[in-house]
Amino acid sequence: MSTVSIVHSPIQLASSCSTIPANTTPSLKVLSNDNGKPLSKSMQHHFSSGSRNFSGSSLKKLSARLHGRQVISLGTGRPTADFYPWESLTFRGLVPHPPASGTTSVKTMEYTVTKHSDIYNLSNGLNYGPTLGSPPLVRFLTEHVEIMHHPSYADWSVSLTSGSTAALEIGFRIFCDREDTVLAERFTYPGAIEGAKLLGLRFEGVEMDVEGLRPEALERTLREWDLSRGSKPRVLYTIPTGQNPTGATQSTERRRAIYDIAEEHDLIIIEDDPYYFLRMGAYRADQESTKKTTDFPSYLSLDRSGRVVRLDSVSKILAPGLRAGWVTANAQIIEKFIAYQEVTTVEVNGPSQLMLWSLLEQTWGHQGFASWLGHISSVYRTRRDALLCACDQYLPRDLCTWDPPEYGMFLWLRLNWEKHPSFRRGMEAVEMEELLSEIAEKINNNAIENGVQVTKGSLFTSNQKPNGELQFRLTFAAASVEQFEQALKALRDAVRQEFAFTCE
Amino acid sequence: MSTVSIVHSPIQLASSCSTIPANTTPSLKVLSNDNGKPLSKSMQHHFSSGSRNFSGSSLKKLSARLHGRQVISLGTGRPTADFYPWESLTFRGLVPHPPASGTTSVKTMEYTVTKHSDIYNLSNGLNYGPTLGSPPLVRFLTEHVEIMHHPSYADWSVSLTSGSTAALEIGFRIFCDREDTVLAERFTYPGAIEGAKLLGLRFEGVEMDVEGLRPEALERTLREWDLSRGSKPRVLYTIPTGQNPTGATQSTERRRAIYDIAEEHDLIIIEDDPYYFLRMGAYRADQESTKKTTDFPSYLSLDRSGRVVRLDSVSKILAPGLRAGWVTANAQIIEKFIAYQEVTTVEVNGPSQLMLWSLLEQTWGHQGFASWLGHISSVYRTRRDALLCACDQYLPRDLCTWDPPEYGMFLWLRLNWEKHPSFRRGMEAVEMEELLSEIAEKINNNAIENGVQVTKGSLFTSNQKPNGELQFRLTFAAASVEQFEQALKALRDAVRQEFAFTCE
Repeated sequence: MSTVSIVHSPIQLASSCSTIPANTTPSLKVLSNDNGKPLSKSMQHHFSSGSRNFSGSSLKKLSARLHGRQVISLGTGRPTADFYPWESLTFRGLVPHPPASGTTSVKTMEYTVTKHSDIYNLSNGLNYGPTLGSPPLVRFLTEHVEIMHHPSYADWSVSLTSGSTAALEIGFRIFCDREDTVLAERFTYPGAIEGAKLLGLRFEGVEMDVEGLRPEALERTLREWDLSRGSKPRVLYTIPTGQNPTGATQSTERRRAIYDIAEEHDLIIIEDDPYYFLRMGAYRADQESTKKTTDFPSYLSLDRSGRVVRLDSVSKILAPGLRAGWVTANAQIIEKFIAYQEVTTVEVNGPSQLMLWSLLEQTWGHQGFASWLGHISSVYRTRRDALLCACDQYLPRDLCTWDPPEYGMFLWLRLNWEKHPSFRRGMEAVEMEELLSEIAEKINNNAIENGVQVTKGSLFTSNQKPNGELQFRLTFAAASVEQFEQALKALRDAVRQEFAFTCE
Repeated sequence: MSTVSIVHSPIQLASSCSTIPANTTPSLKVLSNDNGKPLSKSMQHHFSSGSRNFSGSSLKKLSARLHGRQVISLGTGRPTADFYPWESLTFRGLVPHPPASGTTSVKTMEYTVTKHSDIYNLSNGLNYGPTLGSPPLVRFLTEHVEIMHHPSYADWSVSLTSGSTAALEIGFRIFCDREDTVLAERFTYPGAIEGAKLLGLRFEGVEMDVEGLRPEALERTLREWDLSRGSKPRVLYTIPTGQNPTGATQSTERRRAIYDIAEEHDLIIIEDDPYYFLRMGAYRADQESTKKTTDFPSYLSLDRSGRVVRLDSVSKILAPGLRAGWVTANAQIIEKFIAYQEVTTVEVNGPSQLMLWSLLEQTWGHQGFASWLGHISSVYRTRRDALLCACDQYLPRDLCTWDPPEYGMFLWLRLNWEKHPSFRRGMEAVEMEELLSEIAEKINNNAIENGVQVTKGSLFTSNQKPNGELQFRLTFAAASVEQFEQALKALRDAVRQEFAFTCE
């Protein structure tokens, strides 16, 4: 049974999307219940030299200029729907029902969009649309953000993104000039590191523990920043929940401490939070009654100034192939996201938007979405428990340690490499790194040989400093639960082969 | 009736895609009939300093490393298909039949993909997939490129793109460092200009005439390049067919001349060709017998060295909302495109890929695709003719001139502004530009006031030099044919209002 609880605020949601024509350009939203909240502070000084004066596509602005006026368009090169070779799309989707007695039931439901259906149809979905996203879908996601994070300033806004990797790369371009340093967890998502490096940025890894990024380490890095290394970092990239790769989740106290440091040092926080809704709770049934999964506040919900850029993604909660997500931030920043998307991806593809809208808004509603998140969380919980159980059973405790993750899909395995036959105290750093890299590679190859794939921890190192540790990332999201035992036996053998027999 | 003829080469196409599992990473293709062709020349020296050593995402390479080995994956964070809340998608598509007696008939056909259907199913389509594209779709597009362009070197390759605007921006990043100058038609697609400027690049517009880019002007620009303006341009961006905004199409002779200049001056040619298949032929029925639409060779087909990067898009021939296209170039360059996409958009969304594959490969086949292109070309022809007819009837010939486009969707209207009451011979350039900008703005506003939207020509200026001319871009792709008369009357009135009454 899932231990997820999703709070529905008793807010007065702005009027239903059904009155918004799908082909109008949506304006940046302000929900009616935002009245009375303060505005965000100006973050203009954080914009990179390239983004400062950039306002996006001139052609895209043409349609906005008409302000809904009815004119004959000889203006923009948007082929009429007569030219699209599809008449309708039918989606057969799953509808979860809240658990009655410990299990979630799921039934299927069909939804068809035609070229001429009401509200948001195939003629809209297959044409060029607003870069922000189609109004009915943006409206649903805005309501979702309000329900889940209820931001405390008024001028926040949501834009669709072509997935969080694409959005993050745009975020770096909005805020960073070449040679700037981005702060991040010491181990982090390689796509972030690679995207940033390609833009000429540097990464500085901040120490972590079982609760993820350590505030004291962040504070020290900023306080002691040596300007000969380049200008002081202005951006923190963090994965606060079920962190990739470590599975760590920042506690509420920690989030508050990190946010306060960001306020003090005027940092932009890019909150990459795709695992936020994969809530598995504590490991072992006997702990369940005493330790429930707490819903940690997102940085967005802690944000007083408008310095948080929150990235959500459908990849881990619905499907990665849609290439869709959304970004929430203050309107000044969202305008830049839209501008960059206008001259690159232009917009999130229509079929994915139609699939999301027909499922989220037309079929599920907010309560149904919450039920779905509860449903997959409980499936993830079962998988996590099975993997941890196999770890308990097969991994040698003297060589391997791990912390049971409570969110997300990753398990971070640390190997005590001081037990390796080639380890010697007082090794030179370079020599040590070479040996570590060699051991990791051999275990990796042994594992594949034995029939299991894991990921070397070194792949996630956010800076060039010697790592000095030996880790592997395991996921319980992909393989079938029945394979976990076999996989862990194979991994155990791979480790043993390397640790016991290397020097023979 | 369409005058389109699409040549099917009698090549032996490589074996059908149906044997390729959809979830394996496709290797860059070499079709079997490429044996015996020479390899492309190295274009490595054209790579920007950022792209030279960049090989893409390390995580993406993990799956490639297995070489199809069956292992249990605890490695990559790809949620299993159990987690996707869709069971099936059904596409109702149109199937055109070749014209029997002057008209194309169209019927509908349904195609359903489920999570477990053969070849390419929803479990593949909704998961992360190869950045290159799903193998069955890439295979079809590769065959299509072979049929349409039969490149003359062996190591060409195809990758999907998230639309040509996104691909073009990546192209600029692959080849250009900041401050580099890109050559382009004097009037061109604003998205190209804006994307390039955001990367710190400059645009240099090359003179055009009724056949588009002028080879002599290109050659002179390169020969007389003043290095104090920055390094000599190494990239030509061109829209050779039904050019945006001018509607001009380069003749075969012109294409050959431009390609030869590229060879001599070692230019990369980015061929942005979304209108290539919108083939309307000559205007006026009486000319039809004597002047047929020639299928001009693409730059890709003229390319001997592997210096052409061809961008195709589904936006104008199927639907823009899919956000999909493909790039064809030599394999060295395609590898860079894949690397950049790996850390940004990751891949083209699965629903669009499934829609394309089920329509192109499973329903139409190459012959059916050709019929569809013939069908929409004939619809575009009808629309073009109707717009030109309305122009002939309503626009004042002493003020307006235009050349009937034979490809694409745009009509370029030039206004003789020397007849404007405020025009004086010998005006200062600055004064002239101000006046022109004012007149254009007023006509534009008059037009909207009268109920028609057109696009000011100044939006398409690729460099900062004074334009000295007054143009508007009209499209016949969007409004209904029945509205063209009313639209042209409204535009005529807008022009007259400004030219006759400005000084009253």
